[in-house]
Amino acid sequence: MMKQSFHHLILFSQGKSLLPFTQKISEWITSTSIQNGLLTLWCRHTSASLTVQENVDPTVRKDILAFFDRIVPEGNHYAHSLEGLDDMPAHLCTMLTNTHLSIPIENGKMVLGTWQGIYLFEHRRHSHEREIVLHLMGE
Amino acid sequence: MMKQSFHHLILFSQGKSLLPFTQKISEWITSTSIQNGLLTLWCRHTSASLTVQENVDPTVRKDILAFFDRIVPEGNHYAHSLEGLDDMPAHLCTMLTNTHLSIPIENGKMVLGTWQGIYLFEHRRHSHEREIVLHLMGE
Amino acid sequence: MMKQSFHHLILFSQGKSLLPFTQKISEWITSTSIQNGLLTLWCRHTSASLTVQENVDPTVRKDILAFFDRIVPEGNHYAHSLEGLDDMPAHLCTMLTNTHLSIPIENGKMVLGTWQGIYLFEHRRHSHEREIVLHLMGE
Repeated sequence: MMKQSFHHLILFSQGKSLLPFTQKISEWITSTSIQNGLLTLWCRHTSASLTVQENVDPTVRKDILAFFDRIVPEGNHYAHSLEGLDDMPAHLCTMLTNTHLSIPIENGKMVLGTWQGIYLFEHRRHSHEREIVLHLMGE
Repeated sequence: MMKQSFHHLILFSQGKSLLPFTQKISEWITSTSIQNGLLTLWCRHTSASLTVQENVDPTVRKDILAFFDRIVPEGNHYAHSLEGLDDMPAHLCTMLTNTHLSIPIENGKMVLGTWQGIYLFEHRRHSHEREIVLHLMGE
Repeated sequence: MMKQSFHHLILFSQGKSLLPFTQKISEWITSTSIQNGLLTLWCRHTSASLTVQENVDPTVRKDILAFFDRIVPEGNHYAHSLEGLDDMPAHLCTMLTNTHLSIPIENGKMVLGTWQGIYLFEHRRHSHEREIVLHLMGE
C-alpha cells in the first residue's frame, strides 16, 4: 500500500560552504518505515542549493568554492545589487546547481554510490537558516 | 488512494527571456483535487529550459540573461551552426539549467519558498511555442 | 493499483563522451508493463552525469565536450589532484549537469520531445563501468 511522508528540515549554514547532511536524511527515511519509493528534497531558497558530491577528500569542497567564485564572481557589474554584492552571484550559483534532488529508496536506503554525499550549498557570505522539504512516496 | 494526472501546457516565448508561469501551475494543481503528492514538470525541448528564481526584482532576470550570454556566447566557434548561431548556445544553456523540476505538493500547494517563482527560460532569439508536461501523483 | 519497479543498468563509457541510452530505458519501461507514472534515473557517480540533448546532429556532442573543457579546464590549479588531473574537473562537470532525471511516462512512453535523447556524460579520460538506477512508480 503506497503512502507518503513529509518533513521540514532546518539547517544552519556558516557562510559560503558545502554542508553535508546525508546522515540526517537517512535517519528520517528510517523513521518513516517506507522501504521502497522515491525521495524528493526541495530547497526553499534562491541563494542556497543542493548538490551531490564526493564525501571523502575535503579539498574537493575547497575546489568547488573556488570554481564557483571564478565563473560567478562578485562585483559591481550586476543590476541587482540592493541585497548585497553576494546576492546576485548566489542566485546564479543556485541556477547552475540544484533546487531539488529526487533519489530512489531501495530496501530502506537511498541508492547513493559509494562516494556520493548530499550537501547544502550555501552561496551567501553570512550564516543563514535554510529549510529543506523532504517528501517520500512509497511502501 | 493514490492517483495521478497529466497536463500538457503550451507557453509562448518572446526571444531570450525568463517567462514566469507559477500561477498557471498552481491553477492546474487545484483542478486535479490532489492535496499531497509530487509534481513533475518536463520541458520537451533542447533549447529552452526550466528554472526556479527570485520572483520580485526584475533586474535579477536581466542579470541572468547577461550571465548566460557571457559564459555561453554566440559565435562562429561551434561546429553545430546549421540551425543558426543561437542554437548551439541554447543547447548549452539548457544543459546548465533544468529540463525537469520535481516539487512536493503539501496541502494543495507547491512547497515553494517565499521568493521562489518558476520560469520557462527561452534561449533562442525568436519567439517559440513551448510545451511543458505536468505530472502529479498523490492523493 | 500503483506499483513500482527498480533496475540497475550498467553502461561502459569510452573516455570523455556523451553515450546515448534512450533505447535501453524505453525497453526496460516496456518490460515493467507500467503505462503511466514517473521514471527516475539516478547516476551513482560523482565524475559522470546525465543529460538530455539533441539526438540528431553529432556535432552537437562535439561542441558540448569543447564547452565543458573550456569552462572547467584540467590543470594544476586544483587542490584535489590525487586521483588525476581529470578528476576534479569531472566533479565540477557533474555538478553543472545532472545526477538524476525524473521523466513522466504517459501511455507506456517517456514524454520526450521529438529531438530529446538521454545521455550518460562521462567526464573522465579513461573507460569506466557506470551504474544507473532506474525507478518507475505508476500503474
